Amino acid sequence: GIALACLAARRFAGRWDDLPFGIEVLAFADEEGVRFPTALIGPRALAGTLDRNVFDMTDADGVSMGAAMRAFGADPEATMVLARSPNRILAYLETHIEQGPVLEAEGLALGAVTGICGISRYRIEVTGETGHAGTVPMTGRRDALVGAADLIAEVPARASTLPEFRATVGQLSVAPGVVNAIPSRVVLTLETRSTDDAARARFAQEISTRLAEISDARGLGFTMERSYDQPAVSSDPALLDHLRAAAVESGCGDRLLPSGATHDASAMADLCPVAMLFVRCRGGISHRPDEHASAEDMDAAIDTLAAAIERLASARLSD
Amino acid sequence: GIALACLAARRFAGRWDDLPFGIEVLAFADEEGVRFPTALIGPRALAGTLDRNVFDMTDADGVSMGAAMRAFGADPEATMVLARSPNRILAYLETHIEQGPVLEAEGLALGAVTGICGISRYRIEVTGETGHAGTVPMTGRRDALVGAADLIAEVPARASTLPEFRATVGQLSVAPGVVNAIPSRVVLTLETRSTDDAARARFAQEISTRLAEISDARGLGFTMERSYDQPAVSSDPALLDHLRAAAVESGCGDRLLPSGATHDASAMADLCPVAMLFVRCRGGISHRPDEHASAEDMDAAIDTLAAAIERLASARLSD
Repeated sequence: GIALACLAARRFAGRWDDLPFGIEVLAFADEEGVRFPTALIGPRALAGTLDRNVFDMTDADGVSMGAAMRAFGADPEATMVLARSPNRILAYLETHIEQGPVLEAEGLALGAVTGICGISRYRIEVTGETGHAGTVPMTGRRDALVGAADLIAEVPARASTLPEFRATVGQLSVAPGVVNAIPSRVVLTLETRSTDDAARARFAQEISTRLAEISDARGLGFTMERSYDQPAVSSDPALLDHLRAAAVESGCGDRLLPSGATHDASAMADLCPVAMLFVRCRGGISHRPDEHASAEDMDAAIDTLAAAIERLASARLSD
Repeated sequence: GIALACLAARRFAGRWDDLPFGIEVLAFADEEGVRFPTALIGPRALAGTLDRNVFDMTDADGVSMGAAMRAFGADPEATMVLARSPNRILAYLETHIEQGPVLEAEGLALGAVTGICGISRYRIEVTGETGHAGTVPMTGRRDALVGAADLIAEVPARASTLPEFRATVGQLSVAPGVVNAIPSRVVLTLETRSTDDAARARFAQEISTRLAEISDARGLGFTMERSYDQPAVSSDPALLDHLRAAAVESGCGDRLLPSGATHDASAMADLCPVAMLFVRCRGGISHRPDEHASAEDMDAAIDTLAAAIERLASARLSD
């Protein structure tokens, strides 16, 4: 992503004075939040939304982020003065591999990102009554796992009816968790992602209603608590139009898709208009040694990014 | 159960010489298998089915059963000569609390046990493909937990169509088990209990067929392995008739029910005809400090057990 931005910016070499804006290539720290329990500290520093408390967060060995930065020769306090003034920043453009299978499946090199999905996470607990798996008849059982299964089996079908919606039950634990005991308690996580914050809220309401129906039918209790919420970030319509037109111009079609993953752009959106370009990746794989995007697709992304910057410049000059 | 048998035997005090058989009251060791990974060593010793290897089994502290017995003043080898001759043993009768809710729900003090359920246990593994919960669209997902949920939600309905059948998914684990990753692997246990061994085999075959259908529909793989099997033990028809008639005589009705739990009788069945009497217990609760059967119900059980022995004696004398 960073080399690609450098190569796109190089297309303007010798023409800097003709542009109505400067171009900065950014290489952010900590998009993923690997060592400390936070993420996006780079773009948050520029956007002025970095919380000083993150410097006190500790890694698995008890080393604070502040101490780690100082040991590296960096000054945590200096990070706080990196915040840019919103009225001096025109736009933020980001290129990233898709990290999903859509472009590959459709035979497309590039896609313009409509927005970055908001994320809601819920902790759902279903409670019933345990008992001997041999002596308690099927009728009258209050099996928490059966109730949870009723719900889990329905989640994909419900999510599939909504455009570009994702819903996933990723964690589940059963108590007592014994081969010959009826489960009395199941705790599971439900994560939803969509660029439509209202659609996520409606989905959660529907799930809560279904949980109540299932619990009534099976004599169970339940709780559903939201444990995390991150609102969606929309691409700026004008920037998105420039990216789409540039992709068409580069012979890469006009595919729009949302980003299901979070990116630096989601933090930069607090500072300025943002838009993103996705590049096809092999098998939808990311964060693994076999992550791969072809040189041809990255060339197409360089062309498209440069053409979009050109379009943005023309639009500014004609204003 | 043991005091109750003593009290029933006392009804024959002064009449021993009139009986066509002797009465022994047995207090067995190790019905449950609490300290060592085995069970039923008491009745197995009498039935001649005790395996010498159990004395080498170790507890959580690495102490072998043989060493524990010797430290207690018992001789493991002496246990091996306790085996009785089948042609000298007429019958084995056992009284136990129901450990389930059926008699309480029907307002009955006693039930005659038709047999002791056989038990089959299966380890089922469902495999799919993990992926980012945000970037992988709902269509095309191969979510192992959704496939497992399809199956689990169906188990009670299928089991309910069979008489006195139990099927329970008690353990379940999910990998990778992360809030924002599609589950790629679920391992679960299925336990079935029934006095009909063929019904358990058919049920397993149906579950395997359904797993294949679900896996086909959702692009998943699966394995299903039987990890344990214990055949059912039927009550001896003549002994069962004596118990039923005795219960009716004691004013306790004529309720037949299977035992979903294993009992000493299941090991004694290798030696001689067996039958069992169940006593109502509060809330179906057992193996807990609040386990409870009323004095009135235990009195009724003493009456019934004594009357059944009387009937067995009359039947022998009239042969």
